[in-house]
Amino acid sequence: MTRFRLDLGYDGAAFHGWAAQTGLRTVQGELETWIGRVLRLDEPPVLTCAGRTDAGVHARGQVAHLDLDLPEPEDLARTLQRRLRRALPEDVAVFSVEVAPPGFDARFAAIWRRYRYHLSDGVLDPLQRHTTAAMRGEIEVARLHHAGQALLGLHDFAAFCRAREGATTIRRLQELRAERLPDRRIRVEVRADAFCHSMVRSLVGALVEVGTGRRDDSWLVGLLDAEARSSEEPVAAAHGLVLEEVGYPSVDQLELRVAEARARRELP
Amino acid sequence: MTRFRLDLGYDGAAFHGWAAQTGLRTVQGELETWIGRVLRLDEPPVLTCAGRTDAGVHARGQVAHLDLDLPEPEDLARTLQRRLRRALPEDVAVFSVEVAPPGFDARFAAIWRRYRYHLSDGVLDPLQRHTTAAMRGEIEVARLHHAGQALLGLHDFAAFCRAREGATTIRRLQELRAERLPDRRIRVEVRADAFCHSMVRSLVGALVEVGTGRRDDSWLVGLLDAEARSSEEPVAAAHGLVLEEVGYPSVDQLELRVAEARARRELP
Repeated sequence: MTRFRLDLGYDGAAFHGWAAQTGLRTVQGELETWIGRVLRLDEPPVLTCAGRTDAGVHARGQVAHLDLDLPEPEDLARTLQRRLRRALPEDVAVFSVEVAPPGFDARFAAIWRRYRYHLSDGVLDPLQRHTTAAMRGEIEVARLHHAGQALLGLHDFAAFCRAREGATTIRRLQELRAERLPDRRIRVEVRADAFCHSMVRSLVGALVEVGTGRRDDSWLVGLLDAEARSSEEPVAAAHGLVLEEVGYPSVDQLELRVAEARARRELP
Repeated sequence: MTRFRLDLGYDGAAFHGWAAQTGLRTVQGELETWIGRVLRLDEPPVLTCAGRTDAGVHARGQVAHLDLDLPEPEDLARTLQRRLRRALPEDVAVFSVEVAPPGFDARFAAIWRRYRYHLSDGVLDPLQRHTTAAMRGEIEVARLHHAGQALLGLHDFAAFCRAREGATTIRRLQELRAERLPDRRIRVEVRADAFCHSMVRSLVGALVEVGTGRRDDSWLVGLLDAEARSSEEPVAAAHGLVLEEVGYPSVDQLELRVAEARARRELP
């Protein structure tokens, strides 16, 4: 068996998210189908990705792996990349296919995920509308950025996560930066060891409440004490969000990282 | 009569270009219809723009003017902007409406137009596909940029223009810059006093021939001596092109510029 690493991107608009679902068009489903076809496999392979994105969420730095029991893996990687380039529909692209280093696991070896969210509080540029969410109310970006700094570090982000049975909601938020771009849009960039379900969109939704002055900093910080998400917290629209990049440790640290990540995250 | 200046942008994909055509969806037609509706005019006004873009070409810096015989023009400008923001379909946006300074004419007062063309010679990022053209063959950007410098200045660009009866094809190309962006796409930026029909796309098509090595510099320069466009010259796809900005002189120079621009451009 040889493990391959795929770096890929997609426009999430016409996908029901990453994860394969019978009868629905998903990124995983589309890729597995096409990989099976272009390599003439008896059945489609199984792909594992770094960040399972929701319906409508985009990616340009998604990473996935798959295992294949075929000869000449280096040649196979080149062949697969070339054939996928021709075969894939235009809303998903595989930028590179490589033989993965020993111990690599797209999901469990990742040490961080970086997402960007773009929003507009003015007239939305039609050319940006597929990847930028229009928000009501003028946003004070410095205020939004400042409020966000209180969320950095290791916390239980239950208030920002859609509940999933038996899954922890403890995460380490490593970076949160909001800025107004030269084109007047607002960009919120976040990096964490991992994100739970809908966490980035919940973070952005809550931060916008503070940025518009509808809520204050203490409301935001108070959310860290909540045990579950309440219906009061807005979730920002999916189409403003892009998975930009996934970080991995150096090759000699891969196996250690995988073991560590498989263990359930707990507060110290 | 009061003249108003509109700054606007659009995604050209679903428009048959700027210019109104019976039975077809065009930017001019859509805007005139909506302005007539939101101001409850007896008949739609007539819009004049700085750069009439072709089908599929985008804009984020288009400028247009219209004349209205209505009271309180400053209030009217604000009202029009607010109502258009709510009314317009999402692929066209009016960023601002202002009472124009004396002598202003969106078309004839303009002193330059700046366009950007984005293309990719690698795997196209799905999130960029609506505004970036995929090209065959690897492109040497420095070579493309260097070749383009020979086109700067006042020339007869007949070889780069779709012929139009009685219209001159003499233009002054003020700037041409090609660069590879951090995301690996190639951007070609051009600025001229004005562009004739399909000129930017013809320039980019010819430059790509040189950038890939399929043609050399002397072929490109030789085109400046041609009296008309030949079928040999490729025209780059419309969706890679965006009208980014239109330049106007200071207010006291507007009338002089309009008189000058109305005169037919001639070689010295």
